[in-house]
Amino acid sequence: MGRAPQTSLREEDRALLDASRVAHLATASRDGRPHVVPLCYAVLDENTLVFALDDKPKAAGRTLRRMRNLAENERFALVVDRWDESWNRLAYVLVEGTGALLEDDARGAGAIEALRARYPQYVEMGLRAGAHPVVELRIESVHRWAADGPAGG
Amino acid sequence: MGRAPQTSLREEDRALLDASRVAHLATASRDGRPHVVPLCYAVLDENTLVFALDDKPKAAGRTLRRMRNLAENERFALVVDRWDESWNRLAYVLVEGTGALLEDDARGAGAIEALRARYPQYVEMGLRAGAHPVVELRIESVHRWAADGPAGG
Repeated sequence: MGRAPQTSLREEDRALLDASRVAHLATASRDGRPHVVPLCYAVLDENTLVFALDDKPKAAGRTLRRMRNLAENERFALVVDRWDESWNRLAYVLVEGTGALLEDDARGAGAIEALRARYPQYVEMGLRAGAHPVVELRIESVHRWAADGPAGG
Repeated sequence: MGRAPQTSLREEDRALLDASRVAHLATASRDGRPHVVPLCYAVLDENTLVFALDDKPKAAGRTLRRMRNLAENERFALVVDRWDESWNRLAYVLVEGTGALLEDDARGAGAIEALRARYPQYVEMGLRAGAHPVVELRIESVHRWAADGPAGG
């Protein structure tokens, strides 16, 4: 059962975001063609998620469909969910807002730090500020759903 | 590394779709606002995926955002992915096409059967043709990605 949408992450939303290793990011082209990819992410604050362009970073800003879409249409939707064969334990957090490449160097460095802290793989592959662009997802609405009702976690 | 998009599912795509329990479905409103939800699904054939409206089925066709979006804009994208902390084992299959409520009763019954075969939870909750609407996702393109390259599984 649902709850009313919120405009920023609450503690219980962050608990699910922190516990999950992968999110799913949906974007759409200018003409409304949707796209979705699994995504590694970090929570910067109650209004901000970030992800890095870790694969061929120089070209990725132009060639990745998520980036082409965000350049045309800044709207995004991202979901983090908990799967369980006991369907009364299913839950998800859906966040929506706008996404854009992060231009602020200090903020970008903080984002890279948050990603490295969450994913040792990023430390291993040498993800670092300056070399790897960061995309900021600015949250405008948060919808939490749990199969076991509003009190569910 | 990528492969060229295909227009229908190959055996290796079906292997990942069969092994996964949950997909992520992206749709977009007429004005291009994306949406994404975790989704239980079944493969009907190499060109068709299906899912059921299992929750409050009478109202779901009108109130669920995925259904409102598909009514406005039939395009969908759906991804099934394999997460692994060893990132060289990451893989996903992204399918795109158009989605619509299934009107054909015989085909709808086959879809319900496929969903019940995949999810014992659906048997338990009494999912059945006639009572629960089915959405057909007609595949137009399939893109497979694996971190370990074209030969990866």
